[in-house]
Amino acid sequence: MTNDSLPTPPDILRSASMEIVVTDLARSREFYVDILGLVVTEEDENVICLRTFEEFIHHNLVLRQGPVAAVAALSFRVRSPEDVDLAEAYYRELGCRTERRQDGFVAGVGDSVRVVDPLGFPYEFFHQVEHVERLAWRYELQGPGALVRLDHFNQVTPDVPLGRAYLEDLGFRVTEDIKDSDGVTYAAWLRRKNTVHDTALTGGDGPRMHHIAFATHEKHNIIAICDKLGALRRSDCIERGPGRHGVSNAFYLYIRDPDGHRVEIYTQDYYTGDPDNPVVTWDVHDNQRRDWWGNPVVASWYTEASLVLDLDGRPQPVTARTEASELAVTVGADGFSYTRAGDTEQGFKLGSSL
Amino acid sequence: MTNDSLPTPPDILRSASMEIVVTDLARSREFYVDILGLVVTEEDENVICLRTFEEFIHHNLVLRQGPVAAVAALSFRVRSPEDVDLAEAYYRELGCRTERRQDGFVAGVGDSVRVVDPLGFPYEFFHQVEHVERLAWRYELQGPGALVRLDHFNQVTPDVPLGRAYLEDLGFRVTEDIKDSDGVTYAAWLRRKNTVHDTALTGGDGPRMHHIAFATHEKHNIIAICDKLGALRRSDCIERGPGRHGVSNAFYLYIRDPDGHRVEIYTQDYYTGDPDNPVVTWDVHDNQRRDWWGNPVVASWYTEASLVLDLDGRPQPVTARTEASELAVTVGADGFSYTRAGDTEQGFKLGSSL
Amino acid sequence: MTNDSLPTPPDILRSASMEIVVTDLARSREFYVDILGLVVTEEDENVICLRTFEEFIHHNLVLRQGPVAAVAALSFRVRSPEDVDLAEAYYRELGCRTERRQDGFVAGVGDSVRVVDPLGFPYEFFHQVEHVERLAWRYELQGPGALVRLDHFNQVTPDVPLGRAYLEDLGFRVTEDIKDSDGVTYAAWLRRKNTVHDTALTGGDGPRMHHIAFATHEKHNIIAICDKLGALRRSDCIERGPGRHGVSNAFYLYIRDPDGHRVEIYTQDYYTGDPDNPVVTWDVHDNQRRDWWGNPVVASWYTEASLVLDLDGRPQPVTARTEASELAVTVGADGFSYTRAGDTEQGFKLGSSL
Amino acid sequence: MTNDSLPTPPDILRSASMEIVVTDLARSREFYVDILGLVVTEEDENVICLRTFEEFIHHNLVLRQGPVAAVAALSFRVRSPEDVDLAEAYYRELGCRTERRQDGFVAGVGDSVRVVDPLGFPYEFFHQVEHVERLAWRYELQGPGALVRLDHFNQVTPDVPLGRAYLEDLGFRVTEDIKDSDGVTYAAWLRRKNTVHDTALTGGDGPRMHHIAFATHEKHNIIAICDKLGALRRSDCIERGPGRHGVSNAFYLYIRDPDGHRVEIYTQDYYTGDPDNPVVTWDVHDNQRRDWWGNPVVASWYTEASLVLDLDGRPQPVTARTEASELAVTVGADGFSYTRAGDTEQGFKLGSSL
Repeated sequence: MTNDSLPTPPDILRSASMEIVVTDLARSREFYVDILGLVVTEEDENVICLRTFEEFIHHNLVLRQGPVAAVAALSFRVRSPEDVDLAEAYYRELGCRTERRQDGFVAGVGDSVRVVDPLGFPYEFFHQVEHVERLAWRYELQGPGALVRLDHFNQVTPDVPLGRAYLEDLGFRVTEDIKDSDGVTYAAWLRRKNTVHDTALTGGDGPRMHHIAFATHEKHNIIAICDKLGALRRSDCIERGPGRHGVSNAFYLYIRDPDGHRVEIYTQDYYTGDPDNPVVTWDVHDNQRRDWWGNPVVASWYTEASLVLDLDGRPQPVTARTEASELAVTVGADGFSYTRAGDTEQGFKLGSSL
Repeated sequence: MTNDSLPTPPDILRSASMEIVVTDLARSREFYVDILGLVVTEEDENVICLRTFEEFIHHNLVLRQGPVAAVAALSFRVRSPEDVDLAEAYYRELGCRTERRQDGFVAGVGDSVRVVDPLGFPYEFFHQVEHVERLAWRYELQGPGALVRLDHFNQVTPDVPLGRAYLEDLGFRVTEDIKDSDGVTYAAWLRRKNTVHDTALTGGDGPRMHHIAFATHEKHNIIAICDKLGALRRSDCIERGPGRHGVSNAFYLYIRDPDGHRVEIYTQDYYTGDPDNPVVTWDVHDNQRRDWWGNPVVASWYTEASLVLDLDGRPQPVTARTEASELAVTVGADGFSYTRAGDTEQGFKLGSSL
Repeated sequence: MTNDSLPTPPDILRSASMEIVVTDLARSREFYVDILGLVVTEEDENVICLRTFEEFIHHNLVLRQGPVAAVAALSFRVRSPEDVDLAEAYYRELGCRTERRQDGFVAGVGDSVRVVDPLGFPYEFFHQVEHVERLAWRYELQGPGALVRLDHFNQVTPDVPLGRAYLEDLGFRVTEDIKDSDGVTYAAWLRRKNTVHDTALTGGDGPRMHHIAFATHEKHNIIAICDKLGALRRSDCIERGPGRHGVSNAFYLYIRDPDGHRVEIYTQDYYTGDPDNPVVTWDVHDNQRRDWWGNPVVASWYTEASLVLDLDGRPQPVTARTEASELAVTVGADGFSYTRAGDTEQGFKLGSSL
Repeated sequence: MTNDSLPTPPDILRSASMEIVVTDLARSREFYVDILGLVVTEEDENVICLRTFEEFIHHNLVLRQGPVAAVAALSFRVRSPEDVDLAEAYYRELGCRTERRQDGFVAGVGDSVRVVDPLGFPYEFFHQVEHVERLAWRYELQGPGALVRLDHFNQVTPDVPLGRAYLEDLGFRVTEDIKDSDGVTYAAWLRRKNTVHDTALTGGDGPRMHHIAFATHEKHNIIAICDKLGALRRSDCIERGPGRHGVSNAFYLYIRDPDGHRVEIYTQDYYTGDPDNPVVTWDVHDNQRRDWWGNPVVASWYTEASLVLDLDGRPQPVTARTEASELAVTVGADGFSYTRAGDTEQGFKLGSSL
C-alpha cells in the first residue's frame, strides 16, 4: 500500500505539540491552566507554552492570540536533526509548500519545518528542543485531574483511505479503523509511538482539527476533571463522555475550550509497538465501537471541528466529504446501530428514548 | 410538619431488601448473579435470595418467578421485635391493610408485617433474620464490580409533598429535594441510616418502583460493571450514566434488568446522621441537579418504572401525577435547564445537539 | 454487661472533633492545611479550627499553640441540647470532674461539658454548633488526597475490658476486638454512628491518644497523600502503611504530625448500624489482623502516643499496662504470628528478613 | 560508550516472555492462573504457556516442570525474522554459545536463537510467533487484579557498569540508575520499548534473575491482588510493597511464587521513547529512591534471586559482587539513608523503630 517512489520519510517519534489560535488568551489561559492544570513553561502577552506533568520537552500546547480560532500547527518530533531535512525534502517531493526556520516557529523549539500536507493540514517537524523539568515526581503540583502526557491528535478529512495511504507512506501504522460492509472507511487510527495512535483520521468535511488528546494515569483523574467543571459551573463544556471507547479500549472525555477547540482526556489504551500488531476493524453499525457502553455520540461531535491554517495564517478551505457520513448511517431515520450483530433491538439508548 | 396524633412509629434501621417478581427466573439469575455478581444465599425453582458482599442478614434482594414483572415488597429492618408490633399498629391506625406472618414471607426472615401504605406501596417491616457470613473479607469471591451494600430504594408517587409528610411521620428525615420557584416539589430524598437516603420519592405516575440501588466501594467498580456489560454485548441494559449526581453527590449508573426493573449502582454520598443535617434544595431547572456534569437524563428514566403489588399479588393501579413533570419542564419545547443561574446558553448538551 | 444503676447516658451521635496542643502552630498549620489540605474555618494567632470537606459543623480539629504537645479534648456531638445535661449528670454520677461552659470551649461550638472520664481522658460533649458550608460539591477546592470526614479516635488505655465496659455503658457498641486464647483483650473498636468505630481502645500505657482518623473517598486518595509527602521530602512522617486493615477491612495510612501526634487516613469500612451487627474477634497471633497483607506493624506504632490533658491543661499521668503487650506477643523473641492458623512458616515478612 | 567494532545488533522490540522452571507445576498453576489470573494459552502435563490480557502473541510466561527452580530463558521479540539471524551472529561474534531452532524452543514460537550472554544469562530472540486473541476487551474474563502486559525483567549481576555497556551495545538505552558519590553503580534500568525498562540490572551475586514484572492498568488493581492474597491466607507471599517507586515513578508490589521466583506487579511509569530522554540518577543513600514513601526494602529483596540455566539446563554458577552492596550501605550499622539530603534524622522508618 505504500509508495516506493517516495523519498525516505523522516523518522517520526511522536505527536508532540499543537499550536492553536485562540481569540481571548486570558480566557483560554483560565481554561487550560486554572481548570485543566497544564503547566506553563513560558508565556508572554501573545503566546503561552504549556506542557503536561511527565513531559521534558518545552511544550505540548501553544496558545496564540489571534483573530480567528484555528489550528496553526500539528507538530511531530523526529528522531534526529537530519530527520528535519528529510521531512523538508519529503514534502517538497510531494509538491507541498514548506517553510524551514532554523530558530523554530515557537519558543523552546529549534530547527523546524512546517508544511501544508497533501490533506491540507499544517504539519510541523522538529528535533531540537529545550529540555525542561519533567514534573512526574512533583506530586505537590499535581491536581486530582493531572494531565501527564500529550497522547494524540485527531484530524477530520473527507477521504479517509486517501489520508491513510499518505500517512502510511510517511511511516505511520494503522491500529484500528471503522468501516461498513460496502467498504466505506469512516475513520482510522495511526501510530508512531507504541500506543493506539499519534493521530487519527475522522471522515468529514476537512481539513479540520477534530481534537487534541491528553492522557491521565487513571480513570478517576478524568472523573475529577468532570467534577471540577461541575463545581465551577462549567459543565456545559463537557461535550461527550466520560465513557469507554470501543476503538482503542481507552477511557475518555471530550470537552470544548472557550473557542470550541475540542480536547479529549484519555487513559489506558494498549501496547501497539510490534510490526504485526493486529489491526482491529469495527463495523460502523456496531453501537459499541465509539462508546463501549453504547452511550450515544452527540451530533456536534461528528459535525463540529476547528479550522486549520495555511503557512500564512489563513484558514484552509474546507472540502465536503462525499462518502457516507457516520452520523447519518448510525443515528436517526437514515441510520441504525446494533448492540448485538443481527439484533434489531436498540434498548434504552438515545435513539429510542427521544 | 409531623402528625402528633399518630401512634409511635417503628424504629426503622434501614432499607434492607426488595422482593421483585420476574417473569423468567433463569434469565434474571443470569443478570443478578452471573453479571452483577450478587451472592446467592438460598434458592429453589421459584425464588432466589441474594445478598451483597458486606451484608450479614439473609438477603437484600428476592427474585420470585411470577406472571407479571412487579415489586412485591420494599422491606425495612426495624430495631427490635417489638418494632414489628409498632409497625403493624401504626399502619392499622392509618387504615391500611396489613398482614402479619410470624414465620415471615420469605426464607431467612422471621416475624414480619406487610402493609399497603398510604401511597399504595407494599412495605414490609421485620427484625428477626437469619445471620449469614459477611463476605467483606472474602476478596477471592469479589469481582471488579463487587456490590457491597444495598443502599436505597426509589419510589414514584404522584404527590411528593404528601408522600414526604407520610414518611416524615414514619420517622424518615429529608436530606435533599428538587423544587421550582412556584413551590412544586419534583422529588425528595429521605433517610433513616446515616446516608443520603433509604428511599426517595420521584414525582410521577404511581405507585411504582423507580429503582433499587446497590453500593460499590469505588467509582472504578461501577465502570467495571459497564465494561463487563459491553464485553457481554449487553450494553443496551445501560439506561443512564455512569455519572455524578448533583443530588447526593454520589457516582451512579442506572441499568435495567431483563424485566425492565431499574437498578442503580451507587457510591460515595455523605454522612447525614446529625438531626440538623442541612437539607439541600435544588432548582428543577439546574442542569447539574441530576447529573453534576450536565449530561442529559434520558426520557425513559422519567417515564418508566415497575408496577407494585398489593398483598394479594395484584398490581396496584397507577394514578397520574397532576403537577408539573420534571421531564416536561426541563427538556424540549416546554422546558429549559441552565448550567449557570441566569444564563441562557445550553452548550453542547442533548437539547442543543439534537 | 452494662450497669443498670447508672443514669441515662447522653445520646452520642459521633466523634466530632479533637483539640490538640501543638508546640509550633505555624509548622502544624503547614502540615494540616498546606500538606493534608484540611479547610480552615477560623483562625487566630493561637488557635486554628479545621474541618473536612463534607463537614457542616464548625470544625473537626482544633490546633492550639501550647508548651507541651498533648490532646486537650476528644469531642463528641450529642443529639440534643438536653444530652449535654445528661452527659454532665452522667459523669458527675461517676464521680468525674466536669466543667460546663454555656459558650463552649472553642470558637463555633456552644454549650459544652468537658470531663475527665474514668479512663483519664478529656472527653467533651456538645450539641450547639455553628453550621458552615459543606464543601462536598466544591471539587475545585479538593486536592487529590481530600479528607472528607473525621472518622474516629483511638485511645491507649492499660485495661481494655475495663474501658470497653465503661464505653458500652455510655452507649457505644463493640464491633471488633483482638484477643488471645488466654482471654487477654489487646484492643477493641466501638461505634455510635454506623461505621466500625467512633473510638477504639488500644491496650498500652495510658491514658494516651493513639490517633485521630480522617476519611477519604477512595484508596487512591490515600496514595496521593503518600506521593505528595514524598514530593515534599516529608516521607519520614509516614509511620506505617498504606495497607489494608484486617480489623475494619479499611484501607489505611498512619502519619505523624510535627509534634508526633499520629493521624490515620482511612477509607472503606462497612455498615454496622444494626443492633445485632456481628462482632468480629481476631486472634492476636493472626498476622493479618492489623495488616491484611501481613506487612509488619512498626514498633513505634505500638509504643508511642500523645499525652492527654486534664481540665486544667496539665498532662495526665500515664499508668503502665500490666497485661501482655501486643508488640511483645507478636514480634521478636517473645512473640509469634501466623499467616495460617496452625502454620509455623512466616514467609518474607519483617520477622524473617531482619 | 558503545563498541563500534561489533556487528549490527538485532532490533529488539521488547521483553516478551520468560521461561521458568518450577518444581511443582500444579502448585505454580494455582499461583499464576487461579490467584494471579494469567490466561492459559496452551498447556500439557509438563509445560503451561500463559499470557496477559492485552497480549496477542502466544505467551508471556512459560512454566516448565523441572527438578530445580530456575530461569531457562529471558526472551525478547525482535522486529523481523532477519533480526534472529543478526542476534545469532552477534553473540557468536561475542564468543557466546548459541543454539538456533527453526521450530522454536516452546509452543507457539517459531525460529529462535538462545544464547548464554556475556553476563551468563540465557537470552532468547525470536520474531515468528503464533497470534492469539488479544483479550483487552474481554472484561467478563478480567478479575479485579487483571494483569494486562508483561512489563520488564530484572537481572542480578555483579558488575553493573559492565552489564550496562553490554546492553547499550545491544541497543538498550539507560533511563535511570542508582549510584553513590564514589562512582559505584548499584543498579541501572534499560529500555527498548517506550517505557522505563525492558530489563534492569541489579548489583549483586549473579547471574540470577531478580524478578519478572507484569503491568496492571491502575493502582487499585494491585491492591486487589494483595486483598485476594490475604483472603486466601497467602499474604506471606507478599515480600515488599505495595508502594511507589522513586526509580520509574511506578506503583509496585513484589510477591514470591511457590518456588520463590519473584514477580513484580507494576503500573504507571512514563514515556521514554525520545532518544534524548533524560536519564535520572539517584543517590544510593536517598531513602526515597526505591520507595518514594521511604518504606524499608526488606533484606530478602536484596539477597534472594532465582538461578538461571545454561543451554543444557544446568544452573549457571554465581559470582559474588565485589563492589559495595546496596543493602550494606543503606541499612543497619554499616549504612545510612536520608529523607532530605544533608539531614540526619531518619523518622519512623524501619531502621529507627527496630
